[in-house]
Amino acid sequence: MKKIQGGVTAPEGFLAAGVHAGIKKSKKDVAVIFSEKPAVGAAVFTTNKVKAAPILLSMENIKDQLISAIVVNSGNANACTGEEGMLAARQMLDETGKCLGIPISQILVASTGVIGVPLPVNKVLNGIRMACQALSREGSGAAAEAIMTTDTVPKEIAVEFEVYGKTVKVGGIAKGSGMIHPNMATMLAFITTDIGMEKELLQETLREVVDESFNMISVDGDSSTNDMVAVLANGLSGVWVESKEEEAYLKFKNALEYVAICLAKAIARDGEGATRLIEVRVVNAESLQKARKIARTVTSSNLFKAAVFGEDANWGRIITAVGYAGEEITVEKIDIYLGKVKVLQKGVPLPFSEEEAKEELAREEVIVTIDLNEGDANAVAWGCDLTYDYVKINASYRT
Amino acid sequence: MKKIQGGVTAPEGFLAAGVHAGIKKSKKDVAVIFSEKPAVGAAVFTTNKVKAAPILLSMENIKDQLISAIVVNSGNANACTGEEGMLAARQMLDETGKCLGIPISQILVASTGVIGVPLPVNKVLNGIRMACQALSREGSGAAAEAIMTTDTVPKEIAVEFEVYGKTVKVGGIAKGSGMIHPNMATMLAFITTDIGMEKELLQETLREVVDESFNMISVDGDSSTNDMVAVLANGLSGVWVESKEEEAYLKFKNALEYVAICLAKAIARDGEGATRLIEVRVVNAESLQKARKIARTVTSSNLFKAAVFGEDANWGRIITAVGYAGEEITVEKIDIYLGKVKVLQKGVPLPFSEEEAKEELAREEVIVTIDLNEGDANAVAWGCDLTYDYVKINASYRT
Repeated sequence: MKKIQGGVTAPEGFLAAGVHAGIKKSKKDVAVIFSEKPAVGAAVFTTNKVKAAPILLSMENIKDQLISAIVVNSGNANACTGEEGMLAARQMLDETGKCLGIPISQILVASTGVIGVPLPVNKVLNGIRMACQALSREGSGAAAEAIMTTDTVPKEIAVEFEVYGKTVKVGGIAKGSGMIHPNMATMLAFITTDIGMEKELLQETLREVVDESFNMISVDGDSSTNDMVAVLANGLSGVWVESKEEEAYLKFKNALEYVAICLAKAIARDGEGATRLIEVRVVNAESLQKARKIARTVTSSNLFKAAVFGEDANWGRIITAVGYAGEEITVEKIDIYLGKVKVLQKGVPLPFSEEEAKEELAREEVIVTIDLNEGDANAVAWGCDLTYDYVKINASYRT
Repeated sequence: MKKIQGGVTAPEGFLAAGVHAGIKKSKKDVAVIFSEKPAVGAAVFTTNKVKAAPILLSMENIKDQLISAIVVNSGNANACTGEEGMLAARQMLDETGKCLGIPISQILVASTGVIGVPLPVNKVLNGIRMACQALSREGSGAAAEAIMTTDTVPKEIAVEFEVYGKTVKVGGIAKGSGMIHPNMATMLAFITTDIGMEKELLQETLREVVDESFNMISVDGDSSTNDMVAVLANGLSGVWVESKEEEAYLKFKNALEYVAICLAKAIARDGEGATRLIEVRVVNAESLQKARKIARTVTSSNLFKAAVFGEDANWGRIITAVGYAGEEITVEKIDIYLGKVKVLQKGVPLPFSEEEAKEELAREEVIVTIDLNEGDANAVAWGCDLTYDYVKINASYRT
């Protein structure tokens, strides 16, 4: 497997575009991703009980076998906008279907931005027309830009691998920033691939991969009304996967994991106001579920996140978060490392060099390892530090 | 019922003291509360799986019928300090027992401050001796000061009521600030009363009252290793309560609720870096549990808390938090008010005056009402805004 350029348009047969429709002042705000051949689609959606209109429509459409396009706007979440909002989301589907000449049931629609403000429908529809016109095999970067809200960088990745003498590509774009929390939180990620497989297998694979990537990141503990991760597989590589045991499947899953984790980490790293990526590794846990729960709880701790921002080796906040994760633990077995510096051994503090610990916390990627010493399940979660800028951004996002 | 002076020393027979033992640079850091007559004790402790040494000892001692004293140090949590920490906590009990001439099983011990640093035992023991010497009927204020960590004001309250021709008093002190979250999080609260009742009834009453007071506040979502709420009832008012149906019981419970909610709100208001108290009222819910869960989830939302700091009427963050509280809701039934300004009606945004909404958010006590319109259960939760100072305090707490 190797990294390649091209994002969602790297795989065969995918086009994309991102345009400025005027929802935002000057930045791109409408994106369309299109597969020339109708693709098998799979998706996971926010677990928030309040779901935005586009999410409700996409949940309906994903039930069908085939998906040909994804249409997205940023700058407005079209959430809590009542009947009018549903109508607006349907109009987005209609317009996209008309422009691309495809049934509206083959389209996923997503929105991200401020909640509870009516979508400026005419601007969005006009943007969709422009985007459909602008679709190209080089459009991934523009699409990645067009789905951004408070993100500071577009997030894009693609890889390819060889199997059965053919080349398979997997590409993705994502946006994150605020309201990011495990269980799909507004985080959007769209992944394309030219491998082919049945819908059920694709859905199952996506579910598994999301659980170890997007569901393992946390920026601020808030789960949004608009989250969605979708993957489209159009089969144009000529590789068709039948079973989970096949080499092609294993290679594909590996590539999908790589793409998903790259995008997830990029989202965590670019969390609102963040200066550092925090990677929390929980190792030797009794169960995967426990390892994940604890890793996520630590990355979600405001106190620990603020300590990382301050480069303060306050490991007490780590063990505290381990303790309130709601899982049974044996404190007397736990070791904790900040980077390579061991600070807790079998539940007892070790004397350590403050300087070395500070150095570990000053890295762009801060790695914390929590060894439960009780089993063999491991999990990794990602988060970011809590900074003045997080408060600044969120104290005045809407106004 | 009326408010009176005196805090924990207002009820008959209680003495208290707070002294500077040198754990902190110059502020008071050791407190002792003493009942001249052994009191019936009840307590609830942190649910964190990692429990500090003093918590473990207090959990043991509270099983006995009688408690005569509470000894507390601030500046060091004596948590994650291994066998040495247990020994230090036991020495605190021994010294207090010796100074006061009471069995160590009649003493509760608590610590609050930095985690994982060995307790400076000699300083603490010396402080205990000084505090026991200094015990007085006017010592509540000094004790309230001595349990503070990053609190900016001491928290103290007392009330009295008449029943059966006698006067019953209830008083309390508390500390909070960082690491405050529902389910006992370091929050300490000590309540005294001169009413008398059986231990089981006192424990049950405390449990109920804690669920609607201390367990309904959140500063930062982190639950500490050291939390504890204890109540001592020494019976010296001459009023003995036998059953829950009695007038004296109802009046006492009412007074205990008042004291507990006052202290809980004082903790939320004084959350690290906070400029405002946020009160979230969830009304007309199907069940009390649901109302509480939703109220707590909203007060815990970083995004909403930052919006309050910025006086930004971003009610979308409220409905989002309602949605991820994990409870079944019907968006189409929900009304939301910021103070008196209705912003959402039956799930649909209402046009509202930004100016009026901003005014509501600029108050010292910001009140949010979420009407689920589905039942008759109500709950109130308290929190505070998320500010630059929260980050500042927590980026460099230890160093």
